[in-house]
Amino acid sequence: MTFSVQVKVMPLKDLLDPQGKAVMGGLNNLGLKGINDVRVGKHITLQVDASNEDEAKKIAEDATKKLLANPVMEYFEISVN
Amino acid sequence: MTFSVQVKVMPLKDLLDPQGKAVMGGLNNLGLKGINDVRVGKHITLQVDASNEDEAKKIAEDATKKLLANPVMEYFEISVN
Repeated sequence: MTFSVQVKVMPLKDLLDPQGKAVMGGLNNLGLKGINDVRVGKHITLQVDASNEDEAKKIAEDATKKLLANPVMEYFEISVN
Repeated sequence: MTFSVQVKVMPLKDLLDPQGKAVMGGLNNLGLKGINDVRVGKHITLQVDASNEDEAKKIAEDATKKLLANPVMEYFEISVN
């Protein structure tokens, strides 16, 4: 069976996010009000062949720990749908 | 009130995703089996000041259309939590 796994990789909460700050500046330059913080991360969709949902999640977690996320600066959340 | 708005920006489904292909290659090089497609996009978290959820979503949608997503190559999904 093929599972579609969503991996959200974001900068750690207490780390400065320079990309987010840059986007904030851009939004202000466009005159867009009401947004007081921006954090930018990655959204990765994996199509995983597995016999069940848990196995698919395990494969995605393995791939995330080994390649997709940098544990020093990022955290991740995985969901299977 | 401050709302936390999640914006997922992904490459259009029928477009080639070179970044995804590069990640696929990396996963194969690491010997990780079972993953047959990868698509990489952006996950953006906005802290939005608004009087209600609909207004927060409207502000986020406006920002996404004007800056965060390129409609020629990307689609986006917005959720308020």
